[in-house]
Amino acid sequence: GFPGNPGLKGARGESALSYHSAFSVGLSELVPATNVPIRFNKFFYNDQHHYDDISGKFRCVLPGVYFFTYHLTVYTKDAKVSLFMNDKAIMFTFDQYQETNVDQASGSVILRLEAGDEVWLQVYGDDAFGGVYADNTNDSTFSGFLLYPAIPVSARRR
Amino acid sequence: GFPGNPGLKGARGESALSYHSAFSVGLSELVPATNVPIRFNKFFYNDQHHYDDISGKFRCVLPGVYFFTYHLTVYTKDAKVSLFMNDKAIMFTFDQYQETNVDQASGSVILRLEAGDEVWLQVYGDDAFGGVYADNTNDSTFSGFLLYPAIPVSARRR
Amino acid sequence: GFPGNPGLKGARGESALSYHSAFSVGLSELVPATNVPIRFNKFFYNDQHHYDDISGKFRCVLPGVYFFTYHLTVYTKDAKVSLFMNDKAIMFTFDQYQETNVDQASGSVILRLEAGDEVWLQVYGDDAFGGVYADNTNDSTFSGFLLYPAIPVSARRR
Ligand SMILES: [Ca+2]
Ligand SMILES: [Ca+2]
Ligand SMILES: [Ca+2]
Repeated sequence: GFPGNPGLKGARGESALSYHSAFSVGLSELVPATNVPIRFNKFFYNDQHHYDDISGKFRCVLPGVYFFTYHLTVYTKDAKVSLFMNDKAIMFTFDQYQETNVDQASGSVILRLEAGDEVWLQVYGDDAFGGVYADNTNDSTFSGFLLYPAIPVSARRR
Repeated sequence: GFPGNPGLKGARGESALSYHSAFSVGLSELVPATNVPIRFNKFFYNDQHHYDDISGKFRCVLPGVYFFTYHLTVYTKDAKVSLFMNDKAIMFTFDQYQETNVDQASGSVILRLEAGDEVWLQVYGDDAFGGVYADNTNDSTFSGFLLYPAIPVSARRR
Repeated sequence: GFPGNPGLKGARGESALSYHSAFSVGLSELVPATNVPIRFNKFFYNDQHHYDDISGKFRCVLPGVYFFTYHLTVYTKDAKVSLFMNDKAIMFTFDQYQETNVDQASGSVILRLEAGDEVWLQVYGDDAFGGVYADNTNDSTFSGFLLYPAIPVSARRR
């Protein structure tokens, strides 16, 4: 008989383009409280809403490898900041303040996160408030983005 | 009948690989002018030429989400720098200088850009020159890269 | 005759997802030696083992465009650090220390690397040790990641 019909066309290849997670937020004033997450309230980018301004935490929706970075204005007193991942402080930035010498401190880290993992910054120490400052000509910021999504095997085979 | 012809090979996966935009530039000396774009003149990477050393501006060719970061040597006087997006200062870094205490200041931000959008740094204030310094053992740099391209629907369906 | 067998499934699209290279490392104490690579010994992320804690160097396995960044605690004396690429210092960070004024210094750069290229940090100068410090509440870190892989034409056509 005649040859059969041609087979079905293959599935389209998987794409990295649809895995987006990024945020970039800032402060509008001195951090008012210590030992709780810093609630950034100025938004440069947060299209996926993975940074939650109520809790002050980034919450991982897409598992994968993330880059985080922060830049802090050190003013009024020493800046003591820790980056938390799921209730554990994993990185510390300390910068001493001296009168008439505003400083800048910064940090960055790459972390592998699972869905539901949370990452945030907080001022540590015994003082009621810390030296992480911001106003309309001094930014203090926190940014992060998904670098490499961890694609589940099911999606890879799709 | 005979087996059908093999199916067509699947369409090549839409790929992030061809969307490249990155620059990494530095200064060779003290910023000589205020309230105009800083013209970085040392090139670590600028393969796509999206940073223009004549204007001092990064000009977006590929729409999408970008990361920008800068690191400044604070020397001779206070450093006052703003990051502009299309003629609007959207981020500010201030670091005070004290004698014999060279400092470093830095910032970063994530922004969604359309083709034609421009991003740059400039020193603000009333002084004729600012405290953003560089020489052969002190770098001041500005870098940026496309994080997530905004792929037009037509390209997605191709 | 009967319909032929279905065609073969299409080849998977080329994907940026399988090109991963990232590291994020820190120090646990003051850098003990100058003019040799800083050996970071605290690991935030190094899944591909492209940062080698014996040599203190990142070694490029996947050719492409990389982003590197470092954040240093300046304490006990001035911090003088250079970023090397293949035995050439290409970037310098200098931050002066003054008593009771711990500072933070940072830098970042984008570089195009070939397989085998090495990138690392070292303290320069005549002193036996430098002012790059770390302890359990002061991090000094070095991170990097592959931004855009340089895909060989053979892989693109696959
Ligand atoms: Ca200062
Ligand atoms: Ca200093
Ligand atoms: Ca300080």
